Amino acid sequence: MGPRMLKHNTYFEGGVQSVGFERNGSRATVGVVDTGEYRFGTDAAERMTVVSGELWVRYGDDADWVRYPSGATFEVAAKSHFHVRASSPAAYLCVFL
Amino acid sequence: MGPRMLKHNTYFEGGVQSVGFERNGSRATVGVVDTGEYRFGTDAAERMTVVSGELWVRYGDDADWVRYPSGATFEVAAKSHFHVRASSPAAYLCVFL
Repeated sequence: MGPRMLKHNTYFEGGVQSVGFERNGSRATVGVVDTGEYRFGTDAAERMTVVSGELWVRYGDDADWVRYPSGATFEVAAKSHFHVRASSPAAYLCVFL
Repeated sequence: MGPRMLKHNTYFEGGVQSVGFERNGSRATVGVVDTGEYRFGTDAAERMTVVSGELWVRYGDDADWVRYPSGATFEVAAKSHFHVRASSPAAYLCVFL
């Protein structure tokens, strides 16, 4: 076996944490958004799937909040940003497109 | 907001890593199993769901391996152990019962 490829990521003083991995050349993370509101910038486009709990997302600073329950998926464009809000900790899968 | 409740866990020299959280008094983790084979002991019973990739599991040292593709769920009894095998990194959600 080669070197371990898993990577722990932490953002917003630990309010969002994830474990990154790669499979078949595709990058992804699974992580948790703790209670709170966060603004994320994207480099690559990404597809987010809520795995546990629910997330509220808005795609612009003045846009409406959209609710994504467990199982729901949304995509975010490259070189953009979005806001995420959780009223209790929620887990997600993020696949970079 | 209170102190951050997310916790990074690392096992098997980083071969399995997760982020732990709690919601409504229920504990859970999301994490990744890197390529390899691992033996886990349980304290509480747990329900595992494969979130990305696939895991092979056997419940005893001589039992057959069972394949769990993405979306599949299995439960493990308290105070027991099980073996997990991944041929490429796989993500999971673990809920403690």
